[in-house]
Amino acid sequence: MIQAGIIGATGFAGAELVRLLYGHPAAELCAISSVSFAGESLSSVYPAYAGLCDAICESEDAVVERSEVVFAALPHGLSQAIAEKVIAAGKVFIDLGADFRLQDEETYAKWYGGRYTNKALHAMAVYGLPELFREKIRQTRLIANPGCYTTAVPLALAPVAKEGWIEMTGIIADCKSGVTGAGRSLSEGTHYPLMNEAMHPYKVAHHRHGPEIEQTLLALAKKEAAVTFVPHLIPANRGILATCYARLTKETSVETLHTLYTAFYENEPFVRVKPQGEVADIHHVRYSNLCDISIHVDPANRTLIAVSALDNMGKGAAGQAIQNMNLVFGIEETAGLAILPPAF
Amino acid sequence: MIQAGIIGATGFAGAELVRLLYGHPAAELCAISSVSFAGESLSSVYPAYAGLCDAICESEDAVVERSEVVFAALPHGLSQAIAEKVIAAGKVFIDLGADFRLQDEETYAKWYGGRYTNKALHAMAVYGLPELFREKIRQTRLIANPGCYTTAVPLALAPVAKEGWIEMTGIIADCKSGVTGAGRSLSEGTHYPLMNEAMHPYKVAHHRHGPEIEQTLLALAKKEAAVTFVPHLIPANRGILATCYARLTKETSVETLHTLYTAFYENEPFVRVKPQGEVADIHHVRYSNLCDISIHVDPANRTLIAVSALDNMGKGAAGQAIQNMNLVFGIEETAGLAILPPAF
Amino acid sequence: MIQAGIIGATGFAGAELVRLLYGHPAAELCAISSVSFAGESLSSVYPAYAGLCDAICESEDAVVERSEVVFAALPHGLSQAIAEKVIAAGKVFIDLGADFRLQDEETYAKWYGGRYTNKALHAMAVYGLPELFREKIRQTRLIANPGCYTTAVPLALAPVAKEGWIEMTGIIADCKSGVTGAGRSLSEGTHYPLMNEAMHPYKVAHHRHGPEIEQTLLALAKKEAAVTFVPHLIPANRGILATCYARLTKETSVETLHTLYTAFYENEPFVRVKPQGEVADIHHVRYSNLCDISIHVDPANRTLIAVSALDNMGKGAAGQAIQNMNLVFGIEETAGLAILPPAF
Amino acid sequence: MIQAGIIGATGFAGAELVRLLYGHPAAELCAISSVSFAGESLSSVYPAYAGLCDAICESEDAVVERSEVVFAALPHGLSQAIAEKVIAAGKVFIDLGADFRLQDEETYAKWYGGRYTNKALHAMAVYGLPELFREKIRQTRLIANPGCYTTAVPLALAPVAKEGWIEMTGIIADCKSGVTGAGRSLSEGTHYPLMNEAMHPYKVAHHRHGPEIEQTLLALAKKEAAVTFVPHLIPANRGILATCYARLTKETSVETLHTLYTAFYENEPFVRVKPQGEVADIHHVRYSNLCDISIHVDPANRTLIAVSALDNMGKGAAGQAIQNMNLVFGIEETAGLAILPPAF
Repeated sequence: MIQAGIIGATGFAGAELVRLLYGHPAAELCAISSVSFAGESLSSVYPAYAGLCDAICESEDAVVERSEVVFAALPHGLSQAIAEKVIAAGKVFIDLGADFRLQDEETYAKWYGGRYTNKALHAMAVYGLPELFREKIRQTRLIANPGCYTTAVPLALAPVAKEGWIEMTGIIADCKSGVTGAGRSLSEGTHYPLMNEAMHPYKVAHHRHGPEIEQTLLALAKKEAAVTFVPHLIPANRGILATCYARLTKETSVETLHTLYTAFYENEPFVRVKPQGEVADIHHVRYSNLCDISIHVDPANRTLIAVSALDNMGKGAAGQAIQNMNLVFGIEETAGLAILPPAF
Repeated sequence: MIQAGIIGATGFAGAELVRLLYGHPAAELCAISSVSFAGESLSSVYPAYAGLCDAICESEDAVVERSEVVFAALPHGLSQAIAEKVIAAGKVFIDLGADFRLQDEETYAKWYGGRYTNKALHAMAVYGLPELFREKIRQTRLIANPGCYTTAVPLALAPVAKEGWIEMTGIIADCKSGVTGAGRSLSEGTHYPLMNEAMHPYKVAHHRHGPEIEQTLLALAKKEAAVTFVPHLIPANRGILATCYARLTKETSVETLHTLYTAFYENEPFVRVKPQGEVADIHHVRYSNLCDISIHVDPANRTLIAVSALDNMGKGAAGQAIQNMNLVFGIEETAGLAILPPAF
Repeated sequence: MIQAGIIGATGFAGAELVRLLYGHPAAELCAISSVSFAGESLSSVYPAYAGLCDAICESEDAVVERSEVVFAALPHGLSQAIAEKVIAAGKVFIDLGADFRLQDEETYAKWYGGRYTNKALHAMAVYGLPELFREKIRQTRLIANPGCYTTAVPLALAPVAKEGWIEMTGIIADCKSGVTGAGRSLSEGTHYPLMNEAMHPYKVAHHRHGPEIEQTLLALAKKEAAVTFVPHLIPANRGILATCYARLTKETSVETLHTLYTAFYENEPFVRVKPQGEVADIHHVRYSNLCDISIHVDPANRTLIAVSALDNMGKGAAGQAIQNMNLVFGIEETAGLAILPPAF
Repeated sequence: MIQAGIIGATGFAGAELVRLLYGHPAAELCAISSVSFAGESLSSVYPAYAGLCDAICESEDAVVERSEVVFAALPHGLSQAIAEKVIAAGKVFIDLGADFRLQDEETYAKWYGGRYTNKALHAMAVYGLPELFREKIRQTRLIANPGCYTTAVPLALAPVAKEGWIEMTGIIADCKSGVTGAGRSLSEGTHYPLMNEAMHPYKVAHHRHGPEIEQTLLALAKKEAAVTFVPHLIPANRGILATCYARLTKETSVETLHTLYTAFYENEPFVRVKPQGEVADIHHVRYSNLCDISIHVDPANRTLIAVSALDNMGKGAAGQAIQNMNLVFGIEETAGLAILPPAF
């Protein structure tokens, strides 16, 4: 069994990683750490785990020492130092934070306010979106695991971006996120009575994930992308729905587009292109590593509407991290992730 | 007191009209009708009204006869015959359905499949969006009351459309609606366990309200508009959030746009332009006739993002119908609508 | 217009009072205070109120000085000092907290840990449950306004307690509360993702409102009552559902009980006894001052099941406070409260 | 692999069975049937399953023929004929409906209106509550799988009922159910806008599951039980919370009771007795086969309050059915059920 440790296990992404490792046939949780809950058990934070996973939060070093793969689910800026230790020890590092996601240090500095402390490390980091960068992932030990928006939008647009069928500027990504996306920290915005029966955009056209999405689209299209990215918070626990709008470079029918998408994702175990006439819905992918995509066209504006739905904690965080681990360790890519999502 | 009757009172919009009339200082409910619940009391359909409003559903004719103003909240195609009777009797007709909203009969025929049976009637109908067509409303007795999307999107874009600050093609209206928008009829899509923790688009770029929105924008901009309109259903009872994207015709700062919007809506009692840096949220307008608008810009794509929030049953249906009634009868425009929306 | 001030206006009960005063025909808000938001506007805390009620939080003294009636919505222990000032100034004091609710100081000391600082004041306080103590309320200037559970349970049991038809020990009050009942303060338990799709009891048989309920039942039955009171939190914003179980002292049919209840509440504007066969539902009383009651019997256990539903912020807090104000000032008891609750 | 078939696979319980079989290491779905969706794929009914489980609904006979174990999730009255076929063919039958649950035919006739068509079959049926009747389950091929309430209430009371520590009459079972409990059929009561922000009791003290609960308690206590059973519907998808009240036969501390419960459930893989001071919450058991129990005492009324929480579709239906299958086939009891419930 692969020995897996988690640094920052008491956050939502960390806790979901624990859950997935619990059901993994070839990996097992060996150690966890948490700054806020040092010395406490994970099940005291999440009573759902009581009696089944009562692991105690230890130190970061304990996690690094005992693990073959270390997952980090931390606020930005904290992963670089840990990565250094993990990589130096010859182990695998999978970062669920943003520290290794942006190739351009200036962009990182602009959006996150920090610096790259070890450039060699950044050079070896691979962006962990398996559907787009699978081969590179297999060959590294340092994964920058993308988040929910940065997975949902590129997957919705990848086939047409790669083929040059859409204009790469003027792209609109109108995204809606369940409240777990805001994390475990309390805030007025996530206080039940103020979030229930509520819905609003936030960080309109000014969210840190915007440049990251553009970086992935650039890699696909070999052209600079300009994405107007507007995230919204909706009253549900889990799920990202990304409604993406892009101008088609030529008149194309929805049939042709559907064929392109179907072919592009033909062998992907976790991407489901919906039949024509159906729509992606966050309800259908909850608690799974799936990403559903539906394709639509508005001929009047010659605009493609590609809608992707995923679980922000699954394919948008912990599920994808497990998928990356599977790739790096050369085991079945779907190991621990081959579940049927609940129907309700 | 103005004697007000409702045809189709047991649907959601009809029931909300009843509620607003109950609190109206200058109008009162005099009769209701319903095909599905003929002879039954409204409170047997909506127990919330028990003991307070136990009106019995009578015939359409009874409603027409006793009312000075008749509201109709009916499936499309059914209002024309009633309008004829009401107008012939010298009374006021306010239609919450779609029968009188589209000026162009061909467009109506294409989207609704019917014909205009009495063209004189259609000629006298005024589109009841008071913020844009107040003076005309005051001078008619036949109001085509717009619905939720067709109010939210034009209000979000009116100032810039009128000034020519945005390109009128390539507009994106990504709209999110609470489930009451789907009406009182049962369907799988609105079955609680399937809609809770769910979110999806529907009728993507093919919703009947698209051409109606374009008609209003044309009236404002004096230019044909092309709007890619994508509605979504979200797990909340009430509320429309319209996130509208339009290419600016010139570089403009958010400050300048904010000033334009503030001036445009300066004297409007029901439109609140949010201060810069704040966002519109459906939570803040529930059970009211308010429309909140927040203005944002993505300079990289020279794109305006205008977000409007309203209650689909309030400003998006019954509230606006009351506002129109007030205008037609020459009473205080805010009568019966001057409430403080609940904070939670 | 009665000049009404609120101390602690930024909590949930305070904010709801503001909303109700906004629609009151004979009273108006003249001043508010808040410790947490001193100098800030109420609408900065509750954007729903923006432009409609932008009152600034001032000092307690300013509120006392300008008001004819002072409402206090404060944590326990803080009302006594304010009451002294208000009463000394010849004004009316309505306390939404617990400081004046318990007649027995020892009980207060046991559950709240404080002491009665001015016994004369406590002697003049009247428990503000109008359906049970209307005449006394009319004759005082110091009202101890009961909360949600302490209104819902006594109203459910009053007719049978007064008539001696139930045993006063072994009463079970299984209560379910919407999350606004937990107040505006953030906590893990009210963090959206942890409260959504959740439900649990809390303070089982050990909640401060237990002895208060027993005090009211004693006043009705002239016998000591022993109530096993178990509150639960449910995933909804508003509403208390109290399912109360009491052993009948003799065999009685549901018809007889229904007749008793109907007679008892015959002239009450805010209590609706549901027809036999129907059930009370929090959905039917939201945003109102109503209390719905349904009556059921289990003959096998000779047990009455009385279910009451009210809005914890309405009849369970701010609505009732307004009702009490109306009584004290001798105006129409339903003034400002005669609304039709929303049907959805 | 055990070949498992499902009759009535498109209902909620059937669909959950499919999901659990999908993840089962020693059983696999071999055939499904459905009257409403004959010839259609399961994933056309539940898009969450698309591409992963696209099984087609066949005839009952096809299911019986190909399966080693047949699960039936049908309206009452329909299982007896199928059971006959399955048992005659030497296979295992697990009925999620009520047809085999009541030992007394008169009770069945009273509550369900039918008759026992084959008494030999009823004689061999074992009530499938493994924690209470494990050994009998192991020795039969015909299981009457209990439902959600009938599992939650007995598990909450079993230790004290068996020991004679509670009075068996006057028991109150105040139960709260998520909306999936109402099934897949559409109804006004489960229409999203009418159920959201709603809560109400139903079939008060007159629900079919009352006598079934009493039958199990009788088996435990060897004394007739009288339970006042009041189910409620709450706005959540999944979960049963059963708050059970019973008079203690002697003064007992919560510590002593806790020790009793802990010992009683010591070796049970799916029952978690919460530590003293904690409460059971439906949030902690969702999508699992777990049942959490918390124990409380009200000394004033000498009343035990035992609260159990389970997933009505898991331990309350499909999960328990799988557990029963595992027992009957002699494989690991937790096979396919050893998951960590989601923390949020």
